[in-house]
Amino acid sequence: MRLVTVGSVAFDAIETPFGKTDKIVGGAGTFITLSASFFMKNQGIISVVGDDFPNQTLEFMGSRGIDTSGIQIKHGEKTFFWSGKYHNDMNSRDTLTTELNVLEHFDPIVPEGFTNAEYLMLGNLSPQVQRLVIERMEKRPKLIAMDTMNFWMDIAMEDLMKTISMVDVLIINDEEARQLSKEYSLMKASKIIRAMGPKILIIKKGEHGALLFHENEVFFAPALPLEEVFDPTGAGDTFAGGFMGYIASTDDISFENMKRAIIAGSALASFSVEKFGTTRLTEITELEMEERMHQFVSLTNFQMIQHA
Amino acid sequence: MRLVTVGSVAFDAIETPFGKTDKIVGGAGTFITLSASFFMKNQGIISVVGDDFPNQTLEFMGSRGIDTSGIQIKHGEKTFFWSGKYHNDMNSRDTLTTELNVLEHFDPIVPEGFTNAEYLMLGNLSPQVQRLVIERMEKRPKLIAMDTMNFWMDIAMEDLMKTISMVDVLIINDEEARQLSKEYSLMKASKIIRAMGPKILIIKKGEHGALLFHENEVFFAPALPLEEVFDPTGAGDTFAGGFMGYIASTDDISFENMKRAIIAGSALASFSVEKFGTTRLTEITELEMEERMHQFVSLTNFQMIQHA
Repeated sequence: MRLVTVGSVAFDAIETPFGKTDKIVGGAGTFITLSASFFMKNQGIISVVGDDFPNQTLEFMGSRGIDTSGIQIKHGEKTFFWSGKYHNDMNSRDTLTTELNVLEHFDPIVPEGFTNAEYLMLGNLSPQVQRLVIERMEKRPKLIAMDTMNFWMDIAMEDLMKTISMVDVLIINDEEARQLSKEYSLMKASKIIRAMGPKILIIKKGEHGALLFHENEVFFAPALPLEEVFDPTGAGDTFAGGFMGYIASTDDISFENMKRAIIAGSALASFSVEKFGTTRLTEITELEMEERMHQFVSLTNFQMIQHA
Repeated sequence: MRLVTVGSVAFDAIETPFGKTDKIVGGAGTFITLSASFFMKNQGIISVVGDDFPNQTLEFMGSRGIDTSGIQIKHGEKTFFWSGKYHNDMNSRDTLTTELNVLEHFDPIVPEGFTNAEYLMLGNLSPQVQRLVIERMEKRPKLIAMDTMNFWMDIAMEDLMKTISMVDVLIINDEEARQLSKEYSLMKASKIIRAMGPKILIIKKGEHGALLFHENEVFFAPALPLEEVFDPTGAGDTFAGGFMGYIASTDDISFENMKRAIIAGSALASFSVEKFGTTRLTEITELEMEERMHQFVSLTNFQMIQHA
């Protein structure tokens, strides 16, 4: 198998200035794998749901080439549920409910066909669970990427540091980078964090784009300026999934290819926020994607000439 | 004359987490013209100072090819003075003192040799003063650019709209664009603001770069990620001065050249914040500038290939 992702498969209920949903399908693992599925078929997901989770969604994921045999279905238990409300500027949100349910005692079983995956994506989960997945792989994947959040820095810093030291790529946002490094300047933070283990650091800045750090190189991918952000939920996971899907499908971990992968992830994230949940993510056509990639090129491309 | 700028020539006293200055030379007009002087010699400035202003600074500006004969010296009066203190994140500041002094009754006299300038830069001043300068030109310049701030939106909106309708390029920050358009989305704001008159809008986002809007085109210039921002005072004016200096010196108002001009302005601004006031701005060598322009290229440049 080319790519394996561990991450939540969940229900979300979302309120934005544009509207409100009932429980809809969400979760980091869902966004990551659906996003990666734009580029590839040969991938699997490790997760856990309750018996309230719609079989239809698992079938849909299967139809997108995602092997869902690593999703445990816990009978008599309920799926992880999160609900939140976005503020008017869409840049901040309040969490209204977090019901861990099946995630509380999640033992990430790695199916046999998954253990030789070349690419591994650790979605935002407890660092112990993330580490278990690495340890249960038969061979060390070619590239391990990891997402996390400030919550784990607050309650499980020691465990988090251990897991971070085992990965190649850390993907976090600017606030998280500042908290993890205790340094406000992202340039300084990037050095401190890479000294913790990951050779590559990606700092997501939401509507302000993303930075990719490797050795002495920095690459900046802008976010596409959008008229409207309808629902930002899952944009970060979509970005990470697009990044890993692009890299796994091209099987090229050079810095040059990571730049392209970041643009690909940014493009997919720019679609994702156009509708609630995963809706838009599953509708993107090859043509739309190609057009959007070109928008990124024209957004940042310039030709220098010598001045007089 | 190629480029004329109207803008304050002033004293600043600055406090940052890194240190504190006494009264040093600042002012939008000073930063703009010194920045533009990196690219060109044939420029003039219209401003006013008191007899407390150091003749040495005027001589230094002259040595950089800036014609200071448009700076009125008011005997027995004092130069405009601003003091401010930056917060720890350097993204926000408190104004401690604003003494308008000579600026209170500033009548912007345009010297004879200035009235046929091909490029006109209106630094942040009252919109009445900015408009007077446009009206006092002998012929309509090829390109008029304008800066402003929320203060004028609060107290002189009608006058501001009149001046805005007369210019080609408006250069403001994201907060100002939102206040002026009453629209949070910068994409929507850009349309509303360009309907007010300026064909071209530049929205500065500080450490998050700048957006250039023209018709259906958008260009994004990142800010260079810096280890340390020592003093952000004048960074916006340095950016505007570099932009106009580049355009005036190349005498090319195409969209392609404006992209280069924005990168040039961003590069100069990235130097400007390395030391207090205008210090760093006057030390930049051709080689340093060339290296920094290349940093911008490598920061954003990527080559797309077709994915499988």
